[in-house]
Amino acid sequence: MKEKFNIEKPDPSIREDLKRKNNNKTKPAGSLGRLEEIAMQVGTIQQKTEPELKNPAILVFAADHGIANEGVSPFPQEVTQQMVSNFINKGAAINVFANQNDIDIEVIDSGVKGNFEDDTAHRIHDKKIAEGTESFRYGPAMTREQCKEALQKGAEITRQCAENGCNIIGFGEMGIGNTSSSAMLMHLITGEPLDTCTGKGTGLDTAGINKKHNILSESLKHYQKDGSPLEILAHFGGFELAMITGAFLQAAQEKMTIMVDGFNVTAALLVAHKITPNVLEYCIFAHQSGEKGHRKMLEYLNVKPLLNLDMRLGEGTGAAVAYPLIKASVNFLNNMASFDEAGVSNTE
Amino acid sequence: MKEKFNIEKPDPSIREDLKRKNNNKTKPAGSLGRLEEIAMQVGTIQQKTEPELKNPAILVFAADHGIANEGVSPFPQEVTQQMVSNFINKGAAINVFANQNDIDIEVIDSGVKGNFEDDTAHRIHDKKIAEGTESFRYGPAMTREQCKEALQKGAEITRQCAENGCNIIGFGEMGIGNTSSSAMLMHLITGEPLDTCTGKGTGLDTAGINKKHNILSESLKHYQKDGSPLEILAHFGGFELAMITGAFLQAAQEKMTIMVDGFNVTAALLVAHKITPNVLEYCIFAHQSGEKGHRKMLEYLNVKPLLNLDMRLGEGTGAAVAYPLIKASVNFLNNMASFDEAGVSNTE
Repeated sequence: MKEKFNIEKPDPSIREDLKRKNNNKTKPAGSLGRLEEIAMQVGTIQQKTEPELKNPAILVFAADHGIANEGVSPFPQEVTQQMVSNFINKGAAINVFANQNDIDIEVIDSGVKGNFEDDTAHRIHDKKIAEGTESFRYGPAMTREQCKEALQKGAEITRQCAENGCNIIGFGEMGIGNTSSSAMLMHLITGEPLDTCTGKGTGLDTAGINKKHNILSESLKHYQKDGSPLEILAHFGGFELAMITGAFLQAAQEKMTIMVDGFNVTAALLVAHKITPNVLEYCIFAHQSGEKGHRKMLEYLNVKPLLNLDMRLGEGTGAAVAYPLIKASVNFLNNMASFDEAGVSNTE
Repeated sequence: MKEKFNIEKPDPSIREDLKRKNNNKTKPAGSLGRLEEIAMQVGTIQQKTEPELKNPAILVFAADHGIANEGVSPFPQEVTQQMVSNFINKGAAINVFANQNDIDIEVIDSGVKGNFEDDTAHRIHDKKIAEGTESFRYGPAMTREQCKEALQKGAEITRQCAENGCNIIGFGEMGIGNTSSSAMLMHLITGEPLDTCTGKGTGLDTAGINKKHNILSESLKHYQKDGSPLEILAHFGGFELAMITGAFLQAAQEKMTIMVDGFNVTAALLVAHKITPNVLEYCIFAHQSGEKGHRKMLEYLNVKPLLNLDMRLGEGTGAAVAYPLIKASVNFLNNMASFDEAGVSNTE
């Protein structure tokens, strides 16, 4: 896959102009803290001292997971399909937050078990790879071919967004059992102990977490390691996570600003980052999830989240609620008066 | 003043209904973290399971400080008036953020040195107590009468906002030298060492902070303590800080939701809280400022901020950028589908 994506580091030389512009705004130097960093980053990505956020979108990828039938989640597997219908009917948290902040939502069936009825089918992107993955308890979740197909489909829909004028994008996910997949991706890529990677997901109690940990631990024994990110993704991933991996790589190639959501989405980013580290240059970390492993993921990537509100819902909700902060960053850079314009004296 | 404000604790019995409603939303229980707490708080303040945020406003109080002439700030005193003109001309950070988030801004001259010209005078509320306070280096910044007048004027403009249909309000401030006032209020109310309370303000270097600390330390020697919050406020406060204190008390009495900004605004809240602890029930802490003492202020009040972005600009900017998170809280409570409505299975 490496050959397929060509992700350049943005030229940092524009930072001097951005810095000068920022420092001439009517405020004490540095007093907008992280918002100033975000403004600089978006300006650098766009190579503009007047960056713009156009047609913000969140792509919500959904798929089912064979591992869900092993008892790793308190919710039954059919909730994946039910929640996708909820997305389509605009009843979920991601719909509410996206609607509030004028973010377009696209729902993608990456591999949900079951079909959508005619009245809803046209409001969902049908990119189904299969009716859910196999359980990775005793063998791979998907074939390498399926994994590549998912990466390509995730990239393709992201490319379409870029073509439609979107330059800031986030990814969300839905899939009962997917924190189990993400825990395995995290463990194998970051080297953190499996225990650190295994959290309560949608709401396991301590006994449930222990059971989940034992199942995940067992699955490791059946894994023939070759250590490549694609091998790890195919063995333990979900179709939605593989599509998000492809979406990250394509979004970075398109030079979009990427709003990174929580635990599952960051797990997909770990894979993308392993393939091409430059993807990080395009990422703004929306929030630190309440799901246990997320803090360590962010530490591994050496990045700081904008929000830390103990949210752990997924769907892209962290990205959606953080978006106004990114907008505020771009807005102050473009719309605040300079010391000269306002006739305000700078420091003595 | 205590007799004047009648601040009731909101009746907590509605929390059961709010909890039930929250737990029936199509998401794992508790998965929206702090947003759920905020939704519960706003619902409790408004005594409604469908709370609404109406006509959000930020009142920006500005005044000059005699202490500014002692060398406690890197900015010259005339910047206060210049920045107020910038507010009026919509060029400041608070204007940009308030405009983005549909928040009304009202600018109040609490005691700025100098007059505003005719073309701008009608766009500012003239509540001037005097042309700046006296320096508190060797004596009180204001008289007790001036302090009471400021409290009343701050309360009055807040009452008018409530009458105009605003039920969520924030306060901002501008006044070169005012972190010195706030440091003294913090020191005398919380008992934290003066050193902990004295920060870089608009951007002092280490030598500047030491000088500021020495001046503040000296001023303590000239203070005849009686320890009452009003005495402390009159001796060390600024007119804008006294008005914000009155505004807090009135807003709580009006049962408004209050978005608390950074270091200076929280200093005024410390005074209001000392007068009537119930004011806290109405407060949402927008952010933790990068100004050194703010973290300790929040710890003293035993509260958690929504944001921690190393912002330290004042003007109410922390409240303005946090507002969409409060809106998101109310929106999910009102607009998300319940498990029943969406036909989604709850946990097994």
